[in-house]
Amino acid sequence: MTRSITELVADRARLMGPNVSTFYDDPINMVKGEGVWLWDTDGRKYLDCYNNVPHVGHCNPRVVEAIYRQASTLNTHTRYLHDGVLDYIEKLTATMHASLNTAIMTCTGSEANDIALRMAEEVTGKRGIIATDATYHGNTSLVSQLSQSNIPSVGFGLDQYFRFVEAPDSYRNPDPDGKKFAQSIAEQIEAHEKSGVGFAAFMVCPFFLNEGFPDNPDGWLKPTADVVRKAGGLLICDEVQSGFGRTGTHMWAHEKMGVVPDVMTLGKPMANGHPVGGVVTKMGILSRFRSGYRYFNTFGGNPVSCAAAMAVLEEIEDESLLENARIVGEYALGRMQRLQNKHECIGNVRGSGLVFGAEMVLNRESREPAITFTDRIINAMRHRGIIHSKLGRHKNMLKIRPPMPFTIENADLLFDTLDDVLAKTPLAP
Amino acid sequence: MTRSITELVADRARLMGPNVSTFYDDPINMVKGEGVWLWDTDGRKYLDCYNNVPHVGHCNPRVVEAIYRQASTLNTHTRYLHDGVLDYIEKLTATMHASLNTAIMTCTGSEANDIALRMAEEVTGKRGIIATDATYHGNTSLVSQLSQSNIPSVGFGLDQYFRFVEAPDSYRNPDPDGKKFAQSIAEQIEAHEKSGVGFAAFMVCPFFLNEGFPDNPDGWLKPTADVVRKAGGLLICDEVQSGFGRTGTHMWAHEKMGVVPDVMTLGKPMANGHPVGGVVTKMGILSRFRSGYRYFNTFGGNPVSCAAAMAVLEEIEDESLLENARIVGEYALGRMQRLQNKHECIGNVRGSGLVFGAEMVLNRESREPAITFTDRIINAMRHRGIIHSKLGRHKNMLKIRPPMPFTIENADLLFDTLDDVLAKTPLAP
Repeated sequence: MTRSITELVADRARLMGPNVSTFYDDPINMVKGEGVWLWDTDGRKYLDCYNNVPHVGHCNPRVVEAIYRQASTLNTHTRYLHDGVLDYIEKLTATMHASLNTAIMTCTGSEANDIALRMAEEVTGKRGIIATDATYHGNTSLVSQLSQSNIPSVGFGLDQYFRFVEAPDSYRNPDPDGKKFAQSIAEQIEAHEKSGVGFAAFMVCPFFLNEGFPDNPDGWLKPTADVVRKAGGLLICDEVQSGFGRTGTHMWAHEKMGVVPDVMTLGKPMANGHPVGGVVTKMGILSRFRSGYRYFNTFGGNPVSCAAAMAVLEEIEDESLLENARIVGEYALGRMQRLQNKHECIGNVRGSGLVFGAEMVLNRESREPAITFTDRIINAMRHRGIIHSKLGRHKNMLKIRPPMPFTIENADLLFDTLDDVLAKTPLAP
Repeated sequence: MTRSITELVADRARLMGPNVSTFYDDPINMVKGEGVWLWDTDGRKYLDCYNNVPHVGHCNPRVVEAIYRQASTLNTHTRYLHDGVLDYIEKLTATMHASLNTAIMTCTGSEANDIALRMAEEVTGKRGIIATDATYHGNTSLVSQLSQSNIPSVGFGLDQYFRFVEAPDSYRNPDPDGKKFAQSIAEQIEAHEKSGVGFAAFMVCPFFLNEGFPDNPDGWLKPTADVVRKAGGLLICDEVQSGFGRTGTHMWAHEKMGVVPDVMTLGKPMANGHPVGGVVTKMGILSRFRSGYRYFNTFGGNPVSCAAAMAVLEEIEDESLLENARIVGEYALGRMQRLQNKHECIGNVRGSGLVFGAEMVLNRESREPAITFTDRIINAMRHRGIIHSKLGRHKNMLKIRPPMPFTIENADLLFDTLDDVLAKTPLAP
């Protein structure tokens, strides 16, 4: 049926319960998508500067056709043999360091991270996990413990195995070579060891997307990787947001940060919205895990999921989307910097490729985060037909992370509008 | 690329690691499916008497078209408003007891069960879970602890919260009114309470599919539900296998067993192979859970998943698949009983609707399970073009659980072939 916005909101509360997140003060009923564009129920068009799940564009024809073709032909599971899952793992791991050559296919990044943490427990015999205090890695009982931003009230006591370090913050707390951060990891490793839990793994988004993508120079995670390895733990890179060329300079953000993870996890953009995730690791780690537990995932690696995921890899390649992210990202960063020269509220501009943003501050000297102002900007932009959001440890950073076919023309529309909205929105409400 | 069977097996080991399950001694490279039929790479046709995921038939056109139409139009997430997820939850919960009127959409049954157990912890403030010793409920760190048949070597110590009761066995250990089973639950509740863990929930497939679907009469779970409620715990019914009309007599197997669960979980057949799962519960429980944790699932409840799931419900309704399951199931049980009269190896015949099977025994008096014989039958049937498997606490039960459009003609082919295979296969190897 077709509900009004009021009816949609009421039926969500009735059928889905309380605290179901919606975006924007006036939530939107999206009904159509194409490339970097979305349309609401009134036919209003929005430039999508937010959604990373439709990585190669909303309703990308190559992906849709691949799903349709395979769903019309066969959709089973990996207990029968099939070329699709093998072709995909082969093509995926060919984009990575030679040691990352095996995979488990899942349906979500949450499932992938849940496996990754168990791999660490299996390999190290320990249970202590470390993450930053402003990250998100998923929603299972185990991995939801990693979210300090949305602390679960339940979780079977698993919180005892998690310790947190302060998220890096290049704007307020410079750490140009990553040594301070590595030291904070070392301290939490020691705390895990002292408590008797022991140290199993450090899990991190190598571009620190949720933390507000601090301006860390290339190679910044090397000291951290050294500390983790020296302590006998695994380095787990969650590339759900930062991978598949998002940063414009590398296919995977861990390459940019100068490290090779022991385990790498994937999700959201992997199949452009079709539910696919995965864990990529070294054969030694995979063998240890699979020897201790005969993991099977009914939908994981099914022919349709693999066809969709394969189409995404092909589209990135054929449409040069990594290159596009680099070019458009550089242009966008330049335009954002020009806005910074004009608008006092922009304290800091950061990003790489098609993930960029600006920290909104009440005052450039104090650098005090302009949190409600950021909310007002996001809502004003939404009413001007531009969709984005905010993130970061201070919740004051514009989060601009569009589908990868985003063009310079799209960036111009975004920044022209933002320029105007910033000019018209008072810093104090 | 197109690999030979040998190459497929070698590449699986190289890319997916050890212990990746395959069916049959000679694994099959399936390449095409339609209705109740599958084809391998050599063009050989198989009658699918096993797969429940393609619930309304392999490559069901209504489901495929629904996926294609919605994937071509819009695929986002529930942070935007959309009619699809609401229409689906409304239609799904309309098939259930009035108290089961809210849902969380996930991508897999594992994710659904992971949530269900946390709901129990939230509501009861306790962590003790009980299940049978021959069940399977999924693969996350938490829910994999429920599988005694595939004990994980890791799991962050979560095993301390799980206790098991002997699975019911109507053939060897009759319990016609379910009181013995309820008593065994009561004992484990007491053990949980004595240990200080406390009792949170009993999780069960109401038709005991993995346990070998014992011949429990209607209403059999009532004494168990009484014991669970009296102790303040939740009754969680995992209807991943038993639901959506599988048993032919009811849409949901808990109805057959005379109980209304507090929480019900869904998965595999929900969207015919598109990765969709769900948790259905009462508003009171959902509210408690969502107040303590702002659960969000990126792919869960997306427009494409909901369109696929909706098409499955419509197909069940329009094609009278519940009625078909009842009629064909009754016919199949009759044919299986006639085989029992002829073949000494068939110790017991059981089932309801389109899940039925026979226990293979070395001797009808001792009822000793004929485990390797059962394997030989399954492999012989596979070479005769009939796909099924085995299950049950004794691993000697033919597992016949075809897609729901299975016909009487299909059943005749199955039983004619089985008759011949049983006649030609010696009980001793």
